[in-house]
Amino acid sequence: MTKPSVSSVNITRIINNQPEQTLDLLAVEEPLEIRLGFGPIDARQQKSVSVTMRTPGNDFELALGFLFTEGIIQNPQDVYKIQYCTELNTKENLENIVRVELKPDLEIDLSKLQRNFYTTSSCGVCGKESIEAIKTNCMVQQLDLTFKINPQTINQLPDKLRAQQSVFEHTGGIHACALFDALGNLLLLREDVGRHNALDKLIGAAINSATTKPNKTVLLLSGRASFELLQKAAMASIPVVCAFGAPSSLAVQTAQSFNITLVGFLRNQRFNIYSTPQRITL
Amino acid sequence: MTKPSVSSVNITRIINNQPEQTLDLLAVEEPLEIRLGFGPIDARQQKSVSVTMRTPGNDFELALGFLFTEGIIQNPQDVYKIQYCTELNTKENLENIVRVELKPDLEIDLSKLQRNFYTTSSCGVCGKESIEAIKTNCMVQQLDLTFKINPQTINQLPDKLRAQQSVFEHTGGIHACALFDALGNLLLLREDVGRHNALDKLIGAAINSATTKPNKTVLLLSGRASFELLQKAAMASIPVVCAFGAPSSLAVQTAQSFNITLVGFLRNQRFNIYSTPQRITL
Repeated sequence: MTKPSVSSVNITRIINNQPEQTLDLLAVEEPLEIRLGFGPIDARQQKSVSVTMRTPGNDFELALGFLFTEGIIQNPQDVYKIQYCTELNTKENLENIVRVELKPDLEIDLSKLQRNFYTTSSCGVCGKESIEAIKTNCMVQQLDLTFKINPQTINQLPDKLRAQQSVFEHTGGIHACALFDALGNLLLLREDVGRHNALDKLIGAAINSATTKPNKTVLLLSGRASFELLQKAAMASIPVVCAFGAPSSLAVQTAQSFNITLVGFLRNQRFNIYSTPQRITL
Repeated sequence: MTKPSVSSVNITRIINNQPEQTLDLLAVEEPLEIRLGFGPIDARQQKSVSVTMRTPGNDFELALGFLFTEGIIQNPQDVYKIQYCTELNTKENLENIVRVELKPDLEIDLSKLQRNFYTTSSCGVCGKESIEAIKTNCMVQQLDLTFKINPQTINQLPDKLRAQQSVFEHTGGIHACALFDALGNLLLLREDVGRHNALDKLIGAAINSATTKPNKTVLLLSGRASFELLQKAAMASIPVVCAFGAPSSLAVQTAQSFNITLVGFLRNQRFNIYSTPQRITL
């Protein structure tokens, strides 16, 4: 049984100041706790590393993508099992706690968790040091320029995303992100009320896939491009990131620092290139 | 000196597949660390309670609103001073650390911080228990129904917000929220790249104001309505929350639980009422 991603509610719709009783569909938002099981099998330790408000669905991918983009695991082989916790298996808690069992011999450094980055004295609080903090954690420091895409293909991506977005179609209230190949073929798409969760699900699915190579893909974001989303793209070595909306200053600086091609305001057959335009064949 | 909220960047704009070099304006995103100074004056303790990616500006209000909506302080009088930390006063760090000095005799319970809520064993991870967790922290359990507003006034709010949004006008990339009175007069408006920060700034400004009574206002959100935003509205006893976009399932449940009137999809002279329609005079 999988929890639903959409729920219904009775609402009053007001058009021209006239009320009408009707039914509306909502994107479901519920907490998901991610726990790590680590250490030797005969003396396993457990630690709660995250609670996030997410839309149910693809929870194991979310956990995998989160651990990967936070630098706790380097690849899916570091994990030997992911399962829902059953110890608190009430109706409400059901499927809201995921436990990720790491390989017994894996050495993990929980200080790498992003929320810990900023509270260590070695990491300052400014944009530059926030980017440095990712770099110490990231396998690739600067992405190469071999991946290319043409502007016509980029202009086609938004319609391809919207055509496949099932929860958005029903609720109008959910973020999406998707990976495309250089020809604009949609490879993977994920949705969530939280845009960081949508991207964690997508990256979790990508690294778990035998066929998708994130370093040969274009990432499309249905909203704005923030630092956090560029950080995740950098961790996954995604060379081109496109967003429907505006990037922030720190998103642009992060893209520049990692040589990521960052496209913003992608809509109505036009877009802006904020970083590393060389990958777009004009 | 206040840090700028907007920065410029050289971009390549692609229209009809033709490139054009131009300048673009970005909403600034930078970390802000909030530290508490507490305990007796002669033995002050310090604790970092939050690092958030925010747009510079109204940082003291952000800190005040954050501490209030997390239940750490009950009112602005619990604070006797807010200042930027100067101990790490490099050019980059400047104004990125705020230290809030609490009254010496104030008893604080840091386990109330939201990020701690979810990791205590007493709090489960499901929507119902997430709402209960706010309730234990909140002064008002259910808001009264005395505040009323008519639908014509609600329909006018989006244009009034957009007309006043200065950073959005320049960058197209920032969240806004505003408080209005029952007649639709704009009382306060704040902007930020993070929507939770925008609301913390707004609530911080409201509780610090001699004239604004949050329990007699309408809150307008420029995006979607999530659990986190409804939680903050509940903590501030705001009776009516309107959003341009969709609410999530848990936002609706939270509104219902606190008797908050929740309006979504407010655009083009129409809207949906998801909870407590009695405050809207039809």
